[in-house]
Order: sequence, then structure tokens, then C-alpha cells
Amino acid sequence: MIQLDFHPSGRHFLQIPGPTPVPDRILRAMSYPTIDHRGPEFGALGRKVLADLKKIFKTEHPVIIYPASGTGAWEAALINTLSPDDRVLMFETGHFATLWRKMAQALGLEPEFLGLPGTEGWRRGVQADMIETHLRRDTGHAIKAVCVVHNETSTGVVSDIAAVRRAIDAAGHPALLLVDTISGLASADYRHDEWGVDVTVAGSQKGLMLPPGISFNALSPKAIAASANAKLPRSFWGWAEMLEANKTGYFPYTPSTNLLYGLSEALDMIQGEGLDNVFARHQRLAEATRRAVRAWGLQIQCADPAAYSPVLTGVMMPDGVDADAVRKLIYERFNLSLGQALGKIRGRMFRIGHLGDCNDLTLMATLAGCEMGLKLTGVTVAASGVAAALDFLAQP
Amino acid sequence: MIQLDFHPSGRHFLQIPGPTPVPDRILRAMSYPTIDHRGPEFGALGRKVLADLKKIFKTEHPVIIYPASGTGAWEAALINTLSPDDRVLMFETGHFATLWRKMAQALGLEPEFLGLPGTEGWRRGVQADMIETHLRRDTGHAIKAVCVVHNETSTGVVSDIAAVRRAIDAAGHPALLLVDTISGLASADYRHDEWGVDVTVAGSQKGLMLPPGISFNALSPKAIAASANAKLPRSFWGWAEMLEANKTGYFPYTPSTNLLYGLSEALDMIQGEGLDNVFARHQRLAEATRRAVRAWGLQIQCADPAAYSPVLTGVMMPDGVDADAVRKLIYERFNLSLGQALGKIRGRMFRIGHLGDCNDLTLMATLAGCEMGLKLTGVTVAASGVAAALDFLAQP
Amino acid sequence: MIQLDFHPSGRHFLQIPGPTPVPDRILRAMSYPTIDHRGPEFGALGRKVLADLKKIFKTEHPVIIYPASGTGAWEAALINTLSPDDRVLMFETGHFATLWRKMAQALGLEPEFLGLPGTEGWRRGVQADMIETHLRRDTGHAIKAVCVVHNETSTGVVSDIAAVRRAIDAAGHPALLLVDTISGLASADYRHDEWGVDVTVAGSQKGLMLPPGISFNALSPKAIAASANAKLPRSFWGWAEMLEANKTGYFPYTPSTNLLYGLSEALDMIQGEGLDNVFARHQRLAEATRRAVRAWGLQIQCADPAAYSPVLTGVMMPDGVDADAVRKLIYERFNLSLGQALGKIRGRMFRIGHLGDCNDLTLMATLAGCEMGLKLTGVTVAASGVAAALDFLAQP
Amino acid sequence: MIQLDFHPSGRHFLQIPGPTPVPDRILRAMSYPTIDHRGPEFGALGRKVLADLKKIFKTEHPVIIYPASGTGAWEAALINTLSPDDRVLMFETGHFATLWRKMAQALGLEPEFLGLPGTEGWRRGVQADMIETHLRRDTGHAIKAVCVVHNETSTGVVSDIAAVRRAIDAAGHPALLLVDTISGLASADYRHDEWGVDVTVAGSQKGLMLPPGISFNALSPKAIAASANAKLPRSFWGWAEMLEANKTGYFPYTPSTNLLYGLSEALDMIQGEGLDNVFARHQRLAEATRRAVRAWGLQIQCADPAAYSPVLTGVMMPDGVDADAVRKLIYERFNLSLGQALGKIRGRMFRIGHLGDCNDLTLMATLAGCEMGLKLTGVTVAASGVAAALDFLAQP
Repeated sequence: MIQLDFHPSGRHFLQIPGPTPVPDRILRAMSYPTIDHRGPEFGALGRKVLADLKKIFKTEHPVIIYPASGTGAWEAALINTLSPDDRVLMFETGHFATLWRKMAQALGLEPEFLGLPGTEGWRRGVQADMIETHLRRDTGHAIKAVCVVHNETSTGVVSDIAAVRRAIDAAGHPALLLVDTISGLASADYRHDEWGVDVTVAGSQKGLMLPPGISFNALSPKAIAASANAKLPRSFWGWAEMLEANKTGYFPYTPSTNLLYGLSEALDMIQGEGLDNVFARHQRLAEATRRAVRAWGLQIQCADPAAYSPVLTGVMMPDGVDADAVRKLIYERFNLSLGQALGKIRGRMFRIGHLGDCNDLTLMATLAGCEMGLKLTGVTVAASGVAAALDFLAQP
Repeated sequence: MIQLDFHPSGRHFLQIPGPTPVPDRILRAMSYPTIDHRGPEFGALGRKVLADLKKIFKTEHPVIIYPASGTGAWEAALINTLSPDDRVLMFETGHFATLWRKMAQALGLEPEFLGLPGTEGWRRGVQADMIETHLRRDTGHAIKAVCVVHNETSTGVVSDIAAVRRAIDAAGHPALLLVDTISGLASADYRHDEWGVDVTVAGSQKGLMLPPGISFNALSPKAIAASANAKLPRSFWGWAEMLEANKTGYFPYTPSTNLLYGLSEALDMIQGEGLDNVFARHQRLAEATRRAVRAWGLQIQCADPAAYSPVLTGVMMPDGVDADAVRKLIYERFNLSLGQALGKIRGRMFRIGHLGDCNDLTLMATLAGCEMGLKLTGVTVAASGVAAALDFLAQP
Repeated sequence: MIQLDFHPSGRHFLQIPGPTPVPDRILRAMSYPTIDHRGPEFGALGRKVLADLKKIFKTEHPVIIYPASGTGAWEAALINTLSPDDRVLMFETGHFATLWRKMAQALGLEPEFLGLPGTEGWRRGVQADMIETHLRRDTGHAIKAVCVVHNETSTGVVSDIAAVRRAIDAAGHPALLLVDTISGLASADYRHDEWGVDVTVAGSQKGLMLPPGISFNALSPKAIAASANAKLPRSFWGWAEMLEANKTGYFPYTPSTNLLYGLSEALDMIQGEGLDNVFARHQRLAEATRRAVRAWGLQIQCADPAAYSPVLTGVMMPDGVDADAVRKLIYERFNLSLGQALGKIRGRMFRIGHLGDCNDLTLMATLAGCEMGLKLTGVTVAASGVAAALDFLAQP
Repeated sequence: MIQLDFHPSGRHFLQIPGPTPVPDRILRAMSYPTIDHRGPEFGALGRKVLADLKKIFKTEHPVIIYPASGTGAWEAALINTLSPDDRVLMFETGHFATLWRKMAQALGLEPEFLGLPGTEGWRRGVQADMIETHLRRDTGHAIKAVCVVHNETSTGVVSDIAAVRRAIDAAGHPALLLVDTISGLASADYRHDEWGVDVTVAGSQKGLMLPPGISFNALSPKAIAASANAKLPRSFWGWAEMLEANKTGYFPYTPSTNLLYGLSEALDMIQGEGLDNVFARHQRLAEATRRAVRAWGLQIQCADPAAYSPVLTGVMMPDGVDADAVRKLIYERFNLSLGQALGKIRGRMFRIGHLGDCNDLTLMATLAGCEMGLKLTGVTVAASGVAAALDFLAQP
């Protein structure tokens, strides 16, 4: 077998903002023998995960599971609801918002891309007022959908989806609201129904603690209705056959059975801990991380405290420091994977993931690895971030 | 965890024509911790599987791996090479050929569906002469692709792809040749380059012995060239970014890492046994199965001995027997999953899978389960199929 | 890693009378991370398995778990209850009875070995009347223990333990009754308390479906009382410290934690199926096997139908046939492991295990492998044993 | 299944001095199907592990593998070499030396227990000069063996075995040298042959990174010769049959097959890293730990810097602090298992394991957990031990 564990000793720390470390319970569940996806056992599994998923998205409406990774679920959201040349309003919060726009263009849509100048928008969340203004001007309702990213994985910034909903409503605009919470689901509070989201896009390899390979569309009745008239050609991603087959727990084509085993286990784990406890844990670890960054005297990528992500924290490097060189040393010497900066800010920051199956000591190890790496690459730190995080986590 | 093993004792026999039983080696490989798909370990894994896959498809050209199940790879083959309203020539060999046509229609293509009358075509392979005749008439070359299924999973019939190639060439027609060998790859001999196939579609959960969840497009230079001009909107399935990223072993979006671990192991196993040995084993088990069916006095779904599938055998029931009732009893009483008949022939036959990680005794168990099930449901059998298979397999 | 799966394809059939095929559920359970055997999680595990084990032995009294394989539990039974030069009465039912005697001698005891002449005793169970006669003569009660094997793994013969108890009682003799049911537990009915057994010896790798590595002593109050005065030196095997530590679910020295995970799962599986259903399944498979042997025209090693083992069946070869050559061909060609003949009857029979995680189709595969092997090695069979077994198992 | 993972989220840190965290590679290897321990595959496995083990013990002579946990290997060392009432010289280095003496007494030997007064000996290694003096007085050579512990797991003190050898030789005494390196093997340098050890006792769940369940005796020719005349009754532990069967890779009774799979993998991992690199890594982590303890202003249990253990570090609590209360809080709040103090020093210190599959960040997590626990239980620390360790580990 290919050598997948060349680290000479000890556990690898996978602290990128996804994929996240897959708990043993889930890896074991995934290694059960594959079953007939048309047999009775499978139906029971299908019904269970389809029902439990709704609780995670906080929705009463159907959630679609694709046997495809998260990028596919983006495509599915667009392709099921829109027609060629439709205009969609997107907001540049970071690299993944930019990639989504690129996909919209590739699919023959007409994205309008709002954003703050330069990299300013990569340090803040969606500006709902800009969306409202833009939609008000669209009196002909040429814009068919507003597409935003809930938790920007490239920056560590959370956008206020309820505010976006209010902006659309305030503009009296009928556009659909499509939201990517690929890295937010099950880590940051998310409310599909309450926030009036029409399609929520999510993936498996983040807060759900699974390997990558399956992804989700949570739907609203309005989105389902829109799909009846949407003209983009579709087959694999089509909701209609999925919804029909899902009624009895089955799928119209071969599902990713072993990942569904893992999903079942993940849903049990999350519900066992309690979704609110999961969120509180993420907030706690995020706060500890930010205290470390501040102690080091470094900048947090997210410039708006109200928009701090509970999922990951972007750590900006001082001018002249190559963030990727820091990451490389940390990887090679301390067996710790950190997320690289993507797109516009490549090389200027690194990302610490503190999501999924993570706890106080995993975080302390991660921060220690960062601090040692900063020292060894000659980045001057003001004080010990490890000490600051420890002080926070050791509060009674 | 959901009860995935409710059978009171003993191993389940999964003898459907896919998913196939996943060997322990592969399940173990898949349960390794997920790694960073942008890190150096991943690149080594990616390069290894991308290189080894070529040997299985017998091609010198690139093979694309999708983090999506097999139906997606069908869509990818069409969407990368064709434009809206393009005519495609398809051949009705069975249920999966029919589904592929349905997909082509859903994607806005214009399939022309050749075939023999009634269910005749479901008992034979592609009639290459009909294709040649049809293409000769298309003097304006409106037909852009010929789409055929190599191993029809719904019937157990193998089509002669080299003959289809010759037919296209004889007609002097420039259409692309797209072939689905989802259930044939690594079980039945297949030669992407030698047969002049432009896009081969395959999946993981058959001869590759993996769980479902990843799928493949093997390409020809002509297909790659065609994709530059194809106009169907595409993003997730797009080859261009894949080919670019694959050069260094990476993927343009999140791959299905743990299934790639399994793929690496599967490729090692197949190459360890030797591809020709794998094929010979499948032929041997298929012959034993057919001898059993004949001994029972039942009809084999495939009416053309030259087209017998090494992968699965369809067993036709006498008139008045509900094949699904036979399957259900066998499942419940003998812990054996058989494939149901699909589409036009629903209820009239069942399918025995003898592919993937299967050996003489697994097959004998399967045939014993079938024979006992036939007896218990009152189907009169002429003689013991088990004895006939045993006699064949026990030849010196 | 060492190549542990060199079989070119397909599942190995491990049909020896132990170790038995370990179910996936148990292998997965065993692969959970090792925990602190002095921590609170361990205590819960320990209390659970210690309580559930009693139900399997049908006892109200303590069951000791040794982190050692079954031979160790034999030693423990002797060493905890006896003193140097003590006389013990043993009965030659086969190879394992003989090995136990050898152990008694090695430990400085004085075994008296009853038995039928030649290999006659290897075809029948314990003759309780011989024991009664022998004990009546021991008016001075020099014999301190009667040691018998419940299910002789080397022959496939079950002895009537209740009859042995009655014999001891009829003789009015105070000797302890020590019983080896290493291969009988959880496959053949066994009643520690009802039968008045003082020490029952059992292992993990048979009916409990675990890998080898742990073993058991079920105790009676009389045995515990005897241990207070027994003089053979002991430490590792000593019951007193075990019983004390077990009260809270812990062990006096490091237990075999991961095998205890597996034991917990095994106990859940057995109780889920129901112990009586487990026994009935074993009886059914044993009967099917014997019908096959008779159809072949071969002799069953057990000559007494009342003593047929539900666990394994010994198949005697015609004169001049080397049973090990038959086994070797079957192993190499059909990927099936059968048990070799041991001791006095080496080379003259082979043993088919039909215990543990075994079902109808596993057995049919096994019998098919045997029948093909007999044919290929030139052993003339009268008729098809596979057909005979199939007829039996296919009864409504 | 019993809930073995009740921690609400994230990985457990098992930093006791054994069992150690079992690497994924080993857990996966252990979950391969159990095979026939009398078949050809098993022989290959047996020969491989028996050969590779010699390199770890640094011996040319045989190493015995028991299917029993470490305490059994102690018993085996005594029982194979000694006779009833034999005098053995033991040295009180801590709890495990004390337990070994207790075992010697239980087995009917006459231990003479040297040591420093009070708990002084629990802070230092074996005093070889005391052994020499004692042996010189034994002019009649009544003492048959000197038994010492190489790495005292209860204290974190390493004894100089070469010095003990020199002491015995200087006294001109023929006693055997028996050494327990249960927690030292594969973590601390050990040289069976060079140091003239006669029996080395070791276990699986420490430096070998396996679950508990198998253990070892490495032998010298002198020990083997002694076993021919030793009179303690023995059977299970007997070397003679083991040595005979091991010649071809097999065992005289059922081995612990799945743990041997793990052992094979562990030996590959250790040899892959290089034994010297393994030792250097342990020394580095131990030094970092000691720097942390000193920074906290606490005492290290080992009072002799020359005897510091690379395996574990004992951390003494200030007067009045209950070490177990500190451990309990750390366990419950930070998901970190530390070793409790045993025997004479119960409640007065805790033990940090830094052995086996451990690396820089695992250690930093562990030290952070300790420091937070100390703070939360009100133990005043002089300065941050985490910072001190970080400074050490981050040296270029």
C-alpha cells in the first residue's frame, strides 16, 4: 500500500478548516461492509439520515444528499433553480465566494459580484445594505438569486444570513436566497427555515467530521417550486427524482453507502453532545485562538469582531513574511497541517482550523505548533499566544 | 449506531452485480485518517492512483476521477463533449442504456435510440451493423456521438466494442465513441486505446471492489479536443481544470480522499493478481454459473453465447413465477442478496453477480442459496445446478 | 506489513474448529483506541462483561477472565484448586484430554487416565459409569478432582457432563469437577451451575467468535473454598486477587483491553440472537454436515449419535487416504481451512468446523470445498454430500 | 455496544506510562481476519516477528512470546529458572519491584529485598554496590537470581543494568540476572546480550505501541540451561516446547494471532523510524517534560539526573495536595489520562507518560492539560512549564 503515514511517530494534527480529523467512531462505522442500496437495510439507513439531517439544518423541508463532494452541491443549487443567462447577485467575501462566481459564469449565468474594495471584503462579512441597495435598483427583478457564503473558509469570517434575508425582504425582491455553509454546518449556528434560506449548500468534511465525498442541498418550498421552471440542463443533480426516491429512504442512483454509514454515526455523535453544546465548544476554542493571535501581536484576518468565525481563524503575517514557509516548517517539523491562504491573499496569512472533532488539548497542541513555528522561522511574537490561550481555557 | 448487521449470524453474501463485497484490505485502507488534500502526502497518493488507473483502462491517455458515483461519470462524458441539441446515437441493450438515453434527453441532447424489438435487445449485445447503417445515412454528420454500454448490468450481456469501432470507421463517420463499462471494468477485458474509445465511463463499486462514491472518465485526445468546443454548461464535471490539477497529483476541488485510499489498495490487489488472471477468474465463475442455470432447466437472460457476461448472469424465471418473491425468500432465509430485474423485465428474472472479490466457494454458496430458494418457492428445477457447477469447478 | 492475505481473490473460509471467523462487528469493536485500565470507562466495560459472561456459562457465581489463551485457563483450573502430588481423574476423549493430562503431570499432579481401548475412546464421550466405578474404589478420597472435556475439539464428540456429575454423586465422592468446554461454550448447551461443575474452562476463539487471547474460569463456591487450601504455587493465575478486583470491574494486573472490547460486542451479539437460537443454529448446521458425510459414504469420527458435536464434525478417510493431503489441496485450491487430525489419529480424518459466525451458505460453501477436494484427490464418494445437505437445509 | 467513547468531543490523550496510544497502522493491522495458527500463512508471520524481535532486545538468542499480559512474563522468568525455596535477590526501586517480590513469595521463592530507606529508593535506581556487597556475603551461592527493574514504571527511574552485571561479576557470583523492562523496551536503550542479562521480561503495551495482551521473555543460553534443572512446576509458561515450536514459526498452543499482526506492524514501524531515532525522540520529550516540571517549581520523582527515565516523568505534588484530585479534574475536564501514584507514594505524585507513539505536539497538549489542571485545583506554580517546554522544543 502507498505510504500514507510517513510521519516517523505520533499522531498528525490536521488543523485545516476541513477536512477535519475523522473520529474513530466514524472511521469504524464507515468500514462496515457495503450493502445492497436497494435492500431493506439500506432503506432504514436512508430514512434515518434523511430525517436526522433536518435537525442539523434546522429545517422542516427536505435535505438532498449527493454522492459528490461539496463543489457539486454548489452546482446543484444553481442548476436546479436557474436558467441560462439568469442574473445572480453574489458577494465577494473571499476565495470561495469568488469560486462560486466562477462556477456561475461557467454554467452560463450572469453573476453580479458585489464587494468591498481590494481585500477589504476578505476581512468582513456580507454587507447586507449593499445587497438591499442593489436589489432595489433591480426593479425588473432580473436577478433571480442572491448567493452568499455563510462561513468563508478562506478568511474565517461569518456573514449574517438573517440580515441578508431582511435586506431582500426590505427590497421587496423575489430573488431566491442561496447560501453556502459548507464549512459552517454543525460548527456555527445555522437556521435554514428561520432565516428564509431557499437552498443551503453544505459538505461532509467539516463540522460533520466525515471524510469528503458527500454534500447537501437543503431546500425551501420556494426553491422546489423554482426548480420546476428552471431551464439549466440537469440530470445527476436533479432534485425531483431525488425527492421522490428519498420518500422511502432510497436514492435514484447509487449512493455513497459507506459515507452514509459515517453520516449516521456523525449525526448520533452531534445529537449526543447536543447541537448547542457543539456550537458553544466551537466558540470557546475560537476565542482561545484569537487570544493567542493577539498575544503574538499578529492580526486576525477577520477585522469585524461581530463576524469572527467559530470554525477557523486566519492569522495574518507581518509584511515580508511568507506564510507558506511558516506552514511548511510547522508541517515538516511538528506534524501539524494548517490551511494555506488562497487567492488574493496567498502567502500572507495561514488558517487555523478549530472545528469538528476538536477539544481544548488539541487546540493547545495546535497553538504550540504555531508558536514554535513562528519562532523557528524568525517571526517576532510579542508574547506567548499559548500562554494567553491557556489562561483563557483554564478559567474556572 | 443504526443496526447495519441485523442478520442474526454469519456473513451476508452480497452477490448483486455491484456494489460488490469490499475486501478487508480495502476497508482497512479506507479507514486511515483523512489527510490534507493540498499536502505533500496527498500528491503522492494522487499521482500513484492516476498512473495505475491507466493500466486498468489500457490507455496511455488521462483518466479522470470524480468524487461522485457512476451516474455522474455518464453525465460528465456527455456534458464535456457535446452541445445543446446535439444528436447522439444510443443502443438499447437494457435498463442502463435506457437510463443513459433518459439522461441525454434531460441534458438537452437529441438521442436516437436503436434497438431490437420488444425485449429482444435485452438478450443480446449492441448490433454493430445497425449502427453502421444508421451512421451511413447521417451524411451530414449531425450525430456527434455513439453511446453504448459495454457490460449491461441489467441483463448480463457484453457488447463487442471493437465491432462498434469498426462500424463507425466503416461508415466513415466522425462521431465520438462513448462507452459505459461501469460494471465491466476490471472484470471483463476492456481496451480503451486499442478499441478507439473516446470516453470510457466507469465506477468504483464493481470490479474495482470499492464502495460506491467515485467514478471515472478515460479520455482520448479526440475527446479532449471535442471538449474545447462543447457548449453544454459545465463546471463540476469539467475536464480542463481536472487535467491541469492532476498533472501534479492534485484535484481542483475536494476529492474523496478515503475512497482514493481504497482505490490505491484495489489497484495494488488487481495488479498483484494480474489483470489477465482476474479476467480468467471471472470467466470461470461465469461459466460455472451458466452450467448451474442450464442444469436447473432455466433460461439465461443473454441469448447469445458470444455475449455472455463474465460479470453477472441473468436467470429467467418460468412464466408465472415472480422473481422478486424468489429473491426475497433467499434474502430473508439465506442472507444472500441477488439483483432484481429492472425496467421492461421487472419481476421476470434475477441477476447473480459473480464479480469482484469472488471465488469458487463464494459462488458455490451463492448457487446453493439460489437452488434452495427455488425449491422453497416451488420453482421446479430439472436437476441440481449446484452439482453441475461443482463438477465444472472440480475439474483438474 | 507482512502479507496476510496472499490468497489471490475472495474471502478465505476458516472452517476449523477454532479460531472461528471473527465477525466484522467484533473486529471493529476491537480496533477502538486502548484506554486506561484504571480509569472510569474501563470499570464500566469490566462490570458489563463480567456480568454478561455469567449468562453464557449459566452461573450465578464469578467468572474469571484471563489475559491469556485457553491453555492458560486449564492451568489456572488445576493450580488454583490442587496441591502437589494430588491425584486427579481424567478421561481420554481425545487429543485435548491427553494434553490436559500432560499438563497435570508437568505441574506435579498424579493423573489417573481412564479411557476405552485404542482409539475407541476418541469416537465416544466420557463413560460416566467408568468414572463412578473408579471413584467408588477410591475410598480414601485421594482423588481430588475429576477432569473432563465437554466438547472434544479433536474428535467432534460431546460428553454428558450431567452424567459425570451424577456419577460423582452416586459414588459419594468429594472430588471437584473440572470441565474444559473451550470449544463448546456458546455453541453447545452448557450449564455450569445446574450440572454442578466446580471449574469450567473456556476460551475466546470458538463460540464467542473472538480472536484467541483471553480465556475463562467459571467457579463454584466449592472451588473457591478449595483454592484457599490448594498448595500449588500460583500468582498470575490466582483467583483471590482477581475476584477482589473484579468486584468493581477492574483487574489486578493489565487486562487485554481490546479483546475485552470484542468480548463486549460478542456478548451483545449472542444475547441479541438468543442463546437458544445460537444452539439451534449449531445443531442444524451439524446435522446438515453429517448428512453430507453419510452421503459421501464416509464415516463420522463420533460413533455415538447421542454424542454428536454441534461444533465440529470429524470426517474419517478411507484406508490409505492421507487426510492431510486432501486438506492441503482444499486449502490451496479452494481457499478453505479445515482442521487436521491430531495425536493418535493424525492423517486419518479431517475436521469441519461449523461453529461461531457460521450460517447455511457458509456451510454449503464449506461442504462444496470438501466435496471438490475429495474428487480432486481421488477419494471415491458414494453420492453428493452437498446435495444431501442442501436437501436438508432447504426443508420448509 | 458499550459506550467506549463517552467524551463529548475530540481525541482522548492517553498519557499514562502504558498502555500507550495505539497507532492507526497497528489498530488496522490487528483487525485483519484471524487465520489458522497451524496454516502456512501463520508460519510466515511467526518467523517474521520472532526474528525481528531479537533486534529490539539486541540479542542473538531466542525471544519467547506469551499470549498473556506482562505480569505473566514475570512469572515465566521465575518459574522457568528457579526451584521451590530458592533465594532471589531483588531491589526495591518502586511499586513494580515490590509486586515482583510479592509474586516471588507467592511462587514459593525466598526473596531478599534490598533497598534504600523509606521512599528514598523510589527516587533512585538500583544501587549496584549494595548488590555486589550482598552477593559477596553469599559465599554458598544460595542466591539463584538477581531480579531488577530496568525502567520503574511507578517512579520514572531507570536503573543501570550494565552496572548490575558488573556487580554480579565482581562478586564472582553465579546468580542469574533477570530484568524487567516491561515499560522500557523500545523506548529506552536496552541491550540484552551486551549487558549479560539472562532473562529479560517485557510487554506489548508500552514502547511497542500495542494493546496489552502479549509479553516476552528474552533468554540467554545460561537461562536455558538453568531451566533444565529448575523445579518449579510449569506447563503454560514452559520454554522448552515454545523454543521447539518457534523454530518453524509456530506455537505449542493457541497464540494471540491478532496481536501478532499488530506486533508485526509495530516492528516495521520501529525499524522504519530506526531504533536509535526512537530512543532520541523519547529523550527529547522527557527533557522537555522535566523542564516543564522544574518551571512549575515542582519536584521530579527521580532524584538522580543520571537515572531520569525517557519513558515517563513522575511529578511530585506539594505537601497537602492530593495528586489524584488533580488527575481527576484533568481527566474530566481536559480528556487527558495521567498515571496515578502507586503503593507507598499513593496520592503524592502523578506520572506523565511520554512514550510510544508520542510527538512534540502530543506532549505540548499533555503539558498544557497538566498546567491547566494545576491552576484549576489551586496548586501554585512558579512559572509556565508549557513555556519552558516550548522553548526547549523550539530550539533550532
